[in-house]
Amino acid sequence: MSQSKITYTKDGPFFIIKFNSPESLNAMTSQDYIHLATLLKLAEKDPEVYFTVLQSSGRFFSSGADFKFISEYKDVLTGIEKDNTGGDHAARETQLTKVWLDGFLSTNVHVTDIFINHSKVLIACLNGPVVGLSAAIVALCDIVYAMNDDVYMLCPFSRLGLTCEGGTSITLPMKLGMNSTFESLMFAQKIKMDKLMGNIVVKNYKLNDTDEFNKVIMEELKTKIKTLYLPSCLAMKKLLRSSLNDELDKMNSKEVNQALPFWVDGVPLNRFRQMFHNKQRVRGQRADSKL
Amino acid sequence: MSQSKITYTKDGPFFIIKFNSPESLNAMTSQDYIHLATLLKLAEKDPEVYFTVLQSSGRFFSSGADFKFISEYKDVLTGIEKDNTGGDHAARETQLTKVWLDGFLSTNVHVTDIFINHSKVLIACLNGPVVGLSAAIVALCDIVYAMNDDVYMLCPFSRLGLTCEGGTSITLPMKLGMNSTFESLMFAQKIKMDKLMGNIVVKNYKLNDTDEFNKVIMEELKTKIKTLYLPSCLAMKKLLRSSLNDELDKMNSKEVNQALPFWVDGVPLNRFRQMFHNKQRVRGQRADSKL
Amino acid sequence: MSQSKITYTKDGPFFIIKFNSPESLNAMTSQDYIHLATLLKLAEKDPEVYFTVLQSSGRFFSSGADFKFISEYKDVLTGIEKDNTGGDHAARETQLTKVWLDGFLSTNVHVTDIFINHSKVLIACLNGPVVGLSAAIVALCDIVYAMNDDVYMLCPFSRLGLTCEGGTSITLPMKLGMNSTFESLMFAQKIKMDKLMGNIVVKNYKLNDTDEFNKVIMEELKTKIKTLYLPSCLAMKKLLRSSLNDELDKMNSKEVNQALPFWVDGVPLNRFRQMFHNKQRVRGQRADSKL
Amino acid sequence: MSQSKITYTKDGPFFIIKFNSPESLNAMTSQDYIHLATLLKLAEKDPEVYFTVLQSSGRFFSSGADFKFISEYKDVLTGIEKDNTGGDHAARETQLTKVWLDGFLSTNVHVTDIFINHSKVLIACLNGPVVGLSAAIVALCDIVYAMNDDVYMLCPFSRLGLTCEGGTSITLPMKLGMNSTFESLMFAQKIKMDKLMGNIVVKNYKLNDTDEFNKVIMEELKTKIKTLYLPSCLAMKKLLRSSLNDELDKMNSKEVNQALPFWVDGVPLNRFRQMFHNKQRVRGQRADSKL
Amino acid sequence: MSQSKITYTKDGPFFIIKFNSPESLNAMTSQDYIHLATLLKLAEKDPEVYFTVLQSSGRFFSSGADFKFISEYKDVLTGIEKDNTGGDHAARETQLTKVWLDGFLSTNVHVTDIFINHSKVLIACLNGPVVGLSAAIVALCDIVYAMNDDVYMLCPFSRLGLTCEGGTSITLPMKLGMNSTFESLMFAQKIKMDKLMGNIVVKNYKLNDTDEFNKVIMEELKTKIKTLYLPSCLAMKKLLRSSLNDELDKMNSKEVNQALPFWVDGVPLNRFRQMFHNKQRVRGQRADSKL
Amino acid sequence: MSQSKITYTKDGPFFIIKFNSPESLNAMTSQDYIHLATLLKLAEKDPEVYFTVLQSSGRFFSSGADFKFISEYKDVLTGIEKDNTGGDHAARETQLTKVWLDGFLSTNVHVTDIFINHSKVLIACLNGPVVGLSAAIVALCDIVYAMNDDVYMLCPFSRLGLTCEGGTSITLPMKLGMNSTFESLMFAQKIKMDKLMGNIVVKNYKLNDTDEFNKVIMEELKTKIKTLYLPSCLAMKKLLRSSLNDELDKMNSKEVNQALPFWVDGVPLNRFRQMFHNKQRVRGQRADSKL
Repeated sequence: MSQSKITYTKDGPFFIIKFNSPESLNAMTSQDYIHLATLLKLAEKDPEVYFTVLQSSGRFFSSGADFKFISEYKDVLTGIEKDNTGGDHAARETQLTKVWLDGFLSTNVHVTDIFINHSKVLIACLNGPVVGLSAAIVALCDIVYAMNDDVYMLCPFSRLGLTCEGGTSITLPMKLGMNSTFESLMFAQKIKMDKLMGNIVVKNYKLNDTDEFNKVIMEELKTKIKTLYLPSCLAMKKLLRSSLNDELDKMNSKEVNQALPFWVDGVPLNRFRQMFHNKQRVRGQRADSKL
Repeated sequence: MSQSKITYTKDGPFFIIKFNSPESLNAMTSQDYIHLATLLKLAEKDPEVYFTVLQSSGRFFSSGADFKFISEYKDVLTGIEKDNTGGDHAARETQLTKVWLDGFLSTNVHVTDIFINHSKVLIACLNGPVVGLSAAIVALCDIVYAMNDDVYMLCPFSRLGLTCEGGTSITLPMKLGMNSTFESLMFAQKIKMDKLMGNIVVKNYKLNDTDEFNKVIMEELKTKIKTLYLPSCLAMKKLLRSSLNDELDKMNSKEVNQALPFWVDGVPLNRFRQMFHNKQRVRGQRADSKL
Repeated sequence: MSQSKITYTKDGPFFIIKFNSPESLNAMTSQDYIHLATLLKLAEKDPEVYFTVLQSSGRFFSSGADFKFISEYKDVLTGIEKDNTGGDHAARETQLTKVWLDGFLSTNVHVTDIFINHSKVLIACLNGPVVGLSAAIVALCDIVYAMNDDVYMLCPFSRLGLTCEGGTSITLPMKLGMNSTFESLMFAQKIKMDKLMGNIVVKNYKLNDTDEFNKVIMEELKTKIKTLYLPSCLAMKKLLRSSLNDELDKMNSKEVNQALPFWVDGVPLNRFRQMFHNKQRVRGQRADSKL
Repeated sequence: MSQSKITYTKDGPFFIIKFNSPESLNAMTSQDYIHLATLLKLAEKDPEVYFTVLQSSGRFFSSGADFKFISEYKDVLTGIEKDNTGGDHAARETQLTKVWLDGFLSTNVHVTDIFINHSKVLIACLNGPVVGLSAAIVALCDIVYAMNDDVYMLCPFSRLGLTCEGGTSITLPMKLGMNSTFESLMFAQKIKMDKLMGNIVVKNYKLNDTDEFNKVIMEELKTKIKTLYLPSCLAMKKLLRSSLNDELDKMNSKEVNQALPFWVDGVPLNRFRQMFHNKQRVRGQRADSKL
Repeated sequence: MSQSKITYTKDGPFFIIKFNSPESLNAMTSQDYIHLATLLKLAEKDPEVYFTVLQSSGRFFSSGADFKFISEYKDVLTGIEKDNTGGDHAARETQLTKVWLDGFLSTNVHVTDIFINHSKVLIACLNGPVVGLSAAIVALCDIVYAMNDDVYMLCPFSRLGLTCEGGTSITLPMKLGMNSTFESLMFAQKIKMDKLMGNIVVKNYKLNDTDEFNKVIMEELKTKIKTLYLPSCLAMKKLLRSSLNDELDKMNSKEVNQALPFWVDGVPLNRFRQMFHNKQRVRGQRADSKL
Repeated sequence: MSQSKITYTKDGPFFIIKFNSPESLNAMTSQDYIHLATLLKLAEKDPEVYFTVLQSSGRFFSSGADFKFISEYKDVLTGIEKDNTGGDHAARETQLTKVWLDGFLSTNVHVTDIFINHSKVLIACLNGPVVGLSAAIVALCDIVYAMNDDVYMLCPFSRLGLTCEGGTSITLPMKLGMNSTFESLMFAQKIKMDKLMGNIVVKNYKLNDTDEFNKVIMEELKTKIKTLYLPSCLAMKKLLRSSLNDELDKMNSKEVNQALPFWVDGVPLNRFRQMFHNKQRVRGQRADSKL
């Protein structure tokens, strides 16, 4: 596990988590997402921490789940098909259910749970686009800043044979409005800054350098909190999230429930594979325009 | 029953319902609304259908309930008054309750139920203004397109002695914001494009011909869905509407409950009558400016 | 309309409603149920009333919906079939929907609404068995007394091709427990006194004369309220029903929604007809053992 | 008690409440807030009233809680410390809990309750900035008008060692969006007209004279209601607030619950005191720039 | 304040609170209830505590609010009447509201809040009858043991001109069933052991000595927890109370809301006074038979 | 995977699932539980099925999770400890989280989800005791029959360092009452027939032979459904579970969330291990008395 992909530092009341894989557009494996959740739990337990800040590096904030995990499943799935050539459908379904629960859905539920129930103020600093489960995580953050107009969110669930994940069935309608959410989710469209601004993003810094962007935000935050009584911030977050978190917990469970039959049928796998091949063909450098 | 007022065609995954009474501004009788619900149930049952599209014709999308139904009630009501001249108030109220439940409220509840629980993605193409129960139905749609800046919604409930209907007590605050909803509903004001855009309408096509508008949308939709796995769309709609539908079911019942005493007191009937006479006087051609 | 079937008297803070059709086992038509609702509204508006008491007469408290209404529908339904011989299924469904909404479901919803939202304390005095929608109404009452061990409730929905009605999908699991409710509803079994006592019935008077039973209860009630501040009773009812009524409002709408397709398919009509013929054959005198 | 600080007049269906302390920027003591609630209850009971209008005078709509109340507590708190010099922590906490429940929190809960459950349409006319509990009250109003671009709302809870009050944990996310609310509440930032317009404020009158502003609004309102059936307005408010009020009732209780330990620890008291001294130093005339 | 009326000891994971005023049947003043809440907060904060046990002494567990507080209000109320002889009704209502909020309702809300949100397992050992707010507190406990058949609960709200308090509008229907609750609350009837057993009380020890009863329970508890992993107990309580506490928070607010106008009208005061005089006449020794 | 441990047959509208491992008291591995879920999905999809019946064999209905799975984890856990000897706590936690999510919790969530959302009527035939996750599953069934007085349920979560699982945080308080649930769960006590009867079990057959018991139930069920319209049964189940399922979905997510830190800390593993050793020592034949 390459843990240096996600690192953290503490700076007074700020717990800063940083994504360090600009070369892969900060794509994340299951292990990476669980490690991110582990860091959040570290921040959760630390009584000196009041704000958990997510920063990234390079061109993308995060391009979502890493497609490379697919090749790992080839042998497993071939094995299951061989085991069940005699046609025992129930046995085959049981094995596939176990594979996908473990390989994918259990991670989703866990990471989403940890973000839903995080009691510190969550701040995301979007230096660029954010896709898939990473976009869902940003939608769960309390305050979001954007570097410039190139930032967008993309939830390509309908293109990948998936369904809403990471609480997006609650967070997107609540933050973007129901009809805009339908348009974006049904047709797997990018949600651009004109729609994000004022709804998810609270400030557009109009900068072009990620390091400067991250630095400026931290300076502003330190100024803003000077006269505050910080326990008030956590008490207010608790109140503001009070009814929402129940709803999110419920939908976290329902979302996975609805996704499982699609995984067992092999739809997302095939669509990830196809996307992976397309992506390799175009050599990565125009990856964002393909998503 | 003039069923040709509302027709449908199937085009791949699209079930297209069209209103064909431009001469009456697509006003609808009780029977028409129930027929619209029946068509939705047809779309519901058809496994090939993923999107139910509402189109209209002429200058208005729909001007709401047809005022002509009022004359039908004249004799019935006179009969009830005659039956109870001796002053048996309870008997009179029982009879009036039955008349209005059957004649009006049962239709409202049913049509609203069918729209609330429709599992296909609902798309409305607003070629012009939409009024009353028809506006409530549009507010229940998932994606709404507008032809140009002349489109507006109008819920003249406070002018007609009615109360929120068709789930508007949920959909309008959720989509337009609570305070804008109060301003529009309390004072029976038109909700114009500057307010609809981004909240209910997701795209303004800035066209002037209804046929072209309807055609362009269908072409765009066909392009948009090319790379999609359509079952994902229905699974996502199920998640997005999951908590909302419970709330809508509850309010559908409450809305009718609150409207019933107004009907029994005769308020809406008198106000519809008055409006009908005014409208006839101005000969219909400036009907929209009167609503 | 034979209003003398249901009469009322006022006695201080008590509004006493009495069913007077022992010869028909207090079966009720749509009109009768709406008249009952009208009387409740009378009690609702009267500021001197704190308790609304339901009494009956004869052997049954109420045997539920009157089967005689079926013959009325014969001509209507034949007419609809004739109208649509060419096979226009949508038109046929629209007409049937209208017929059943008006003829049955709109009444159910209304009567249930009025009972759910009644603000006075509802007391039912069960002199004998209670069936169907009348049983649902008793399950909505706040305090229930039974005359003797012959009392039972019966919700024969699964035998009649119906589904839960009158809020029973909430009231029965809440009051009888979920598993007992499943056993009783799924298999259309009588709910006898051993199950009712302590859960729905709060006192078994062990008497054999209905008039005496009704009289004894009223005497006890008058003694019980002597030292009370009656506005406290209504304030407490409001609190106790506060969350419940929201849930009941929601389910009232859902119950009708689920029943409608069964009516449109003609199932309950056929089963009522069949039951009516069976009943006539056995000449009524052993009606209860047949339900 | 200086009741002339808040007066009322009746004008047809309008119950107009006016704040008359421009010299203190309409700051309010506990007594003032309870008197405001009492006036609302007067409007509530009056069957001729359909709209309750809040007007103010001078430069601020209301600068929130009056800091002068602090000096009153000096002796009480000194007494408690003296009583418990022996170190009985539990006894000290009991006494402090009683002091703050009575002195502050019970008033907050009551005033908020009355505003949540007010059944008439609540209209606020913001002639200038509004701060603290007064801002929370405005956020509970149904329709809000602003005089010009100088209007802002400020909830400086995190600066004062408080937490959300007056239902702001519900009303602000619902009306301003969750992320904007977090930014404003966490960092105690002014919510300016660019953010209020369209979300809380429905019309910006762009005027500079408070008397003219108040007068113009009343004239417009009288014109708007001419053709309305006013009972419809109250029925619609009941529906629109139906689920919201349950949520607000719940959060009203939670908000106070979370604030109590902060009061018992003495945080808000110290911060109010400090602010009071700062304010006196700058001689009041630039008070708004300090908040 | 006589704090020795309520004392506590720690015994391993048990935090034992004991009522020590058998001579006054453990009646409690406002101060006493707040002191009880303070002790609960002590138990809450102590990481070694897993179970909070309520024990009492003498014949009653607790006879509820102490009537002696009434005399304190005589002068205050006379003062208010004198202040407002000129007939300023609003001013009078404001003052009365403040008096009762502070003197009674704010205490109720606070104590109830603390019991609702207590995270340790709450165990009540009923050595005898429990009345009023004390009964409400017992209904909020997780496990209840009874000494013998003389134990009963009594909520005489309708006799005192009060309404449900201490969350009884939720806890009693949930634990006793809705209809039994109505019977008990409406008519201010004792809830005896035949009804409590299995619903609120989980074991009847059939003992006659309070000290022995308290001792036997503690011995049994110590045996029961020997093989347990105690953090599991708190995690399970959190889950079991999860939805319930939201509901309780909401109703705590509503209950007080509904009680306030009764207090302002003077009803409970007059009825407490009357009961106090009756009680003095019978010299206390038969107090329970009078409640 | 030994699939013959759980088999199924179809018999008209009945889908009968049978546990066939009497020698291991029908203990179940993760694979077994997922296979059970797969069979439920088979029943779900089959339009001829209306009732899903769970039967077992031998002395126990099911003794819960199979302890043998523990030895499988020995090497994995040793490997994780070795990997992280340098003391990287976050990396260690990430790896442990992944192990337990996959190995245990993802299975629990999935099986619980499938039972929660099963639309056919679920009937459990308890031939003997049922423990742990299997007990949770029985608590999710709609109708439960017991063979004789030896039947009990046991949820030993507090003894194993676990927390509520399989929806028991909802189903047990709903069906057994809150206080009885607390007593049983906190102290890991058997819930015996005197408590189950009437609350979870609807009929005690008082038989001693499992085959006869299973046979008699099927005969009775076939008689009971003779006159039923079976689609009514499924429509009623949908209504009865409507609000409950939302709550169950939410708690399913919360339960796992709370259990995860216990697993990561190694508590349940150690306690399972210890129990496994104890059990081997006593040679299995008195296993039930040890649980």
